[in-house]
Amino acid sequence: MVFPARPQVVVVGGGIRGSMFATTVLQHPDAVLVALCDPSPAVRDRNATTLGVPVHADVETMLSAHPDATAAIIATPDFAHRDVAVACASRGLDLLVEKPLATTTEDAEAIRAAAEESGSRVVVGFENRWNQKFLEVRDQLAQAAAGRVVAQVVNLNDTRWVPTEMLSWASKSSPAWFLMPHSLDLTMWLTGTHPVEVFARGTKRVLPELGVDTWDAVTASFAMSDGSTVVLNSSWVLPETAPSVFDFRYEVQTESSVYHFDISHDGVTRYDPDGISWLQFGVHERHGRLRGVPIDMASDFIAALNGEERDLPDAAYGCRITAAIEAVHASLATGLPQPL
Amino acid sequence: MVFPARPQVVVVGGGIRGSMFATTVLQHPDAVLVALCDPSPAVRDRNATTLGVPVHADVETMLSAHPDATAAIIATPDFAHRDVAVACASRGLDLLVEKPLATTTEDAEAIRAAAEESGSRVVVGFENRWNQKFLEVRDQLAQAAAGRVVAQVVNLNDTRWVPTEMLSWASKSSPAWFLMPHSLDLTMWLTGTHPVEVFARGTKRVLPELGVDTWDAVTASFAMSDGSTVVLNSSWVLPETAPSVFDFRYEVQTESSVYHFDISHDGVTRYDPDGISWLQFGVHERHGRLRGVPIDMASDFIAALNGEERDLPDAAYGCRITAAIEAVHASLATGLPQPL
Amino acid sequence: MVFPARPQVVVVGGGIRGSMFATTVLQHPDAVLVALCDPSPAVRDRNATTLGVPVHADVETMLSAHPDATAAIIATPDFAHRDVAVACASRGLDLLVEKPLATTTEDAEAIRAAAEESGSRVVVGFENRWNQKFLEVRDQLAQAAAGRVVAQVVNLNDTRWVPTEMLSWASKSSPAWFLMPHSLDLTMWLTGTHPVEVFARGTKRVLPELGVDTWDAVTASFAMSDGSTVVLNSSWVLPETAPSVFDFRYEVQTESSVYHFDISHDGVTRYDPDGISWLQFGVHERHGRLRGVPIDMASDFIAALNGEERDLPDAAYGCRITAAIEAVHASLATGLPQPL
Amino acid sequence: MVFPARPQVVVVGGGIRGSMFATTVLQHPDAVLVALCDPSPAVRDRNATTLGVPVHADVETMLSAHPDATAAIIATPDFAHRDVAVACASRGLDLLVEKPLATTTEDAEAIRAAAEESGSRVVVGFENRWNQKFLEVRDQLAQAAAGRVVAQVVNLNDTRWVPTEMLSWASKSSPAWFLMPHSLDLTMWLTGTHPVEVFARGTKRVLPELGVDTWDAVTASFAMSDGSTVVLNSSWVLPETAPSVFDFRYEVQTESSVYHFDISHDGVTRYDPDGISWLQFGVHERHGRLRGVPIDMASDFIAALNGEERDLPDAAYGCRITAAIEAVHASLATGLPQPL
Repeated sequence: MVFPARPQVVVVGGGIRGSMFATTVLQHPDAVLVALCDPSPAVRDRNATTLGVPVHADVETMLSAHPDATAAIIATPDFAHRDVAVACASRGLDLLVEKPLATTTEDAEAIRAAAEESGSRVVVGFENRWNQKFLEVRDQLAQAAAGRVVAQVVNLNDTRWVPTEMLSWASKSSPAWFLMPHSLDLTMWLTGTHPVEVFARGTKRVLPELGVDTWDAVTASFAMSDGSTVVLNSSWVLPETAPSVFDFRYEVQTESSVYHFDISHDGVTRYDPDGISWLQFGVHERHGRLRGVPIDMASDFIAALNGEERDLPDAAYGCRITAAIEAVHASLATGLPQPL
Repeated sequence: MVFPARPQVVVVGGGIRGSMFATTVLQHPDAVLVALCDPSPAVRDRNATTLGVPVHADVETMLSAHPDATAAIIATPDFAHRDVAVACASRGLDLLVEKPLATTTEDAEAIRAAAEESGSRVVVGFENRWNQKFLEVRDQLAQAAAGRVVAQVVNLNDTRWVPTEMLSWASKSSPAWFLMPHSLDLTMWLTGTHPVEVFARGTKRVLPELGVDTWDAVTASFAMSDGSTVVLNSSWVLPETAPSVFDFRYEVQTESSVYHFDISHDGVTRYDPDGISWLQFGVHERHGRLRGVPIDMASDFIAALNGEERDLPDAAYGCRITAAIEAVHASLATGLPQPL
Repeated sequence: MVFPARPQVVVVGGGIRGSMFATTVLQHPDAVLVALCDPSPAVRDRNATTLGVPVHADVETMLSAHPDATAAIIATPDFAHRDVAVACASRGLDLLVEKPLATTTEDAEAIRAAAEESGSRVVVGFENRWNQKFLEVRDQLAQAAAGRVVAQVVNLNDTRWVPTEMLSWASKSSPAWFLMPHSLDLTMWLTGTHPVEVFARGTKRVLPELGVDTWDAVTASFAMSDGSTVVLNSSWVLPETAPSVFDFRYEVQTESSVYHFDISHDGVTRYDPDGISWLQFGVHERHGRLRGVPIDMASDFIAALNGEERDLPDAAYGCRITAAIEAVHASLATGLPQPL
Repeated sequence: MVFPARPQVVVVGGGIRGSMFATTVLQHPDAVLVALCDPSPAVRDRNATTLGVPVHADVETMLSAHPDATAAIIATPDFAHRDVAVACASRGLDLLVEKPLATTTEDAEAIRAAAEESGSRVVVGFENRWNQKFLEVRDQLAQAAAGRVVAQVVNLNDTRWVPTEMLSWASKSSPAWFLMPHSLDLTMWLTGTHPVEVFARGTKRVLPELGVDTWDAVTASFAMSDGSTVVLNSSWVLPETAPSVFDFRYEVQTESSVYHFDISHDGVTRYDPDGISWLQFGVHERHGRLRGVPIDMASDFIAALNGEERDLPDAAYGCRITAAIEAVHASLATGLPQPL
């Protein structure tokens, strides 16, 4: 199969995720990595060395320098998606945007509008959809024997290292913004339903004392369109000694069955003099090539760009998730259920 | 230590729990089992044989026949506590009442009023307080190092066998009435806080089709007096192949720590040709005597009757729990948060 | 039931276990704690304060001072049972001896002989027999549906804290001497069989470097009298960060079923800033009284002394276990299977 | 990258594994599937339909019909590798042979000799080496911080469905022949050591009664070249209600650390009306292409055929494993340790 023109991809943001996506494109036979941009000189230097492509300080400079770019992967902080995504979409680039699409409905809709106007395709990076465990259960739930879903409960937490060390912008986010797009997406995608109302509560005590002015933990209760219920619990204050940085446990009850997922404990426990850890295999290297769930996601983005059929979460879906998480925060602020 | 008069105990209700409590009293050196009553002739016969004490058809007959009774254990169905408890309390008997105290605030308050008037002591059977796992963690949480509680999530579910086979009166109850008094009590007792508001959702689909007109599953979100949050999830529709009849998982997050309890999986798994089971050790016999959590509870009731100091949940506390679960159902009915 | 004379109990050894047993006797209504002996002045002082009974420096002095003693609990280091047990047995005292009865067949037989001559009763403290989990499975295995046992595998390990910190006499013991009496006893008692041959291997590398000249880890393969197999694995070098000091996992395969026990993980996990721990409930206090598996064992010893029927491991059985563990070490030394 | 000639691959055996490997080759861009052979007409028909390549009744016919074949994948029953592997190797075909290479040292050496004479490359399919969990831990164990290995214990069992239903040739195999090549390979490959002596025991009771004359369960104790110990436990009589067909738990103790693997429980539990299952993701399809551990293994075989560097288990290694498992059976027969 020969493609008249392989997608020419730029990456916006050179942190952990941006670098990983850039490497993925670089290693992919059906796409070309054109350039990367990041405001930090140190980050630019590091990526220039490892990737061997031009690096730029901002998206405008990059797009001007590379008018041949046809696609962009957006890996900036969550709250900073809008400007760069709109800039890319306005020039007609297809987009893979890290979840959530944006952290306000206004921003999300602006990205969607820009993409609609230019005809860009937008894919939102709900990467759990590339986890074979969820794929398999989604297939099983679609079969009649499972019956309809009754209730879902998702616990997705991080240790306090994430808001205090890993993210410089945690105070502009929350456990709800950072974690619930993942869990809410799964509840919708696994069972084919969507939320119609949300009620949320939270606690704000530990992180402010640690200098990060955001929620410690949020619990959100959703009514779904099919009459089932969804509970999402997300905390950002687990102790750093926890066996993995994230704690991800999911359960689905249907009319006939129950599924329990333990995603953070992936089968290998190490006890060493420093403590106990659950080894993680989400992204790993094999014969010099990255493998794993986000790599598969980026590969499907490239496949779609090359004309292959892929069922991918689009901008409208991204807007729906953003609206739902926005409503979580509205419920936290008002103490009342919020319609969706 | 010599007691001028050991408590003379009657038991109301001769089902699984009533029989167990009667046996407990019978085996206890510091109390006397006087009689038992139950409306079912078969149940009366069985208890007469195993216990060797008089059995009666109703509480009035029993109390008239045994004016020397000083205490009663109430083990009727949840919704049927009021009349028998009031009858006993009015005559000045001290009471151990199975949780919940009643299933309406009106009933619960009637019991409390009757007891207050006659000076009866009322103990409500929140038996998890006698589980050493919770006792130990309660002690740890009371220490400064744990910090204040941030969030609690309790999953307490039953297989559908409980509402469809075990309980004849399931349609007058719900997973919230049957299970949440346990879980709510623990959240309050472990951390020294109480609920000030509740919001709840539920699904009603499977059990009505199975002929039991009640909720399949309920999720309730509580705001607590100390600013922390509590989520209670309770379902009555787990498949009957589940490894234990109940599924009880509890987690507490504090400012410094996290505790995870797995109560239903008690360390022994059996794989046999019929399936997989987790052996349960809540109540067992040793050298002809019952042991276990509810036995310890009944023993502490007897100890208190004999003048020993025991910290036991009283009628006012029972009324508070009943009011909270009533509010869960009000929230289910109105779709709005309910103050407590 | 009135006893003409309650057992008058002395305790030999005032360490963790000796103190615990002394307290148990002190709190028991059907026995009298007479005295305790220990060579360490500090240990004596501590026990004198907490127990309020006479303390002595050695067993001879104690026995001379208390000629009324009728029973002894032996809680000295494993290798030091013989002299004190023989001293007590020779005077006709009934004995509860911590497992193993002794660490040479010669010592074990000497204790047995002394007891036989004087008519003393000897009970060896295989305390897992008082763990309800094993009691219940033993009952189930005795039923026809389980079929005969095919294979048993027992992992019973300690962190290196036990040989390097907890035991001053670890170099005179080994993971096989310290741990396998427990696991071997269970394999015999649960399934009603006994070993006829053993083959063992081990590694000696870590503990010698830490100054304790004994085996790091031993694996022993037993042929049982009924044709089934038993594998015992015991290590003394787990990292100190392990979630509990001991790691105890047991599996039994029968002709129809499989049982898996996880004894060290007792349902509660704590994550705190210092690490991860599994809370342990083997011994705990309730209303000022000790409870737990070794307390039940000591109580049954007292019950037996008072004439009640109890099925308890005796000196002959203790000799058999000692011979088996001795043969483990013989196999380690010779590289050959050892008949039993 | 252009290869002057892609490997032309034939597959010997069209069962579950043979079909899977054939599909893998068919889907691989760098290899050509030439033909498949199987003695069963039904199996041939099925593969002809799904694969669209010529199918033959035996290997000689196939090789004569396809003189251009350059490589063969051998997926016959374990005991039937020799003749077909020698036939292929004699013609100079490179081989991927399912583990174990053969079930007698004589057979294994014959394959090795044929391959050496013709210059064929032989790869033995120890597929766990393509499991990322083991790959990662192998890397960690190679680092100085882990210290040297002290002990390994591997439990690898199957439900009785495998010998009684899945394999028609189970009576010519055993749990040791079928399962221990996997576990022994891992112990050697993970830690860089090899066995120097083995002692084994087993039970033969359930399977003979079920009409399969082989061992129910075998336990083997290995002395390794570096002084560490290895215990392998393999049973073929787990109840069919077990949550997965295989039960695979592995632990490694080193001088500083412990690793626990639970391979059979891969994070998702399903409770449905038929029982409890752990979903398995070893092989799955994505966008019409197979993925998973054996697929990666076959791909690396193809990569090696195409000249890429791969570290693969060869015929000499396969002979060593076969000799070790043969010695397990010799120890079972003689009751004595066997040197290796």
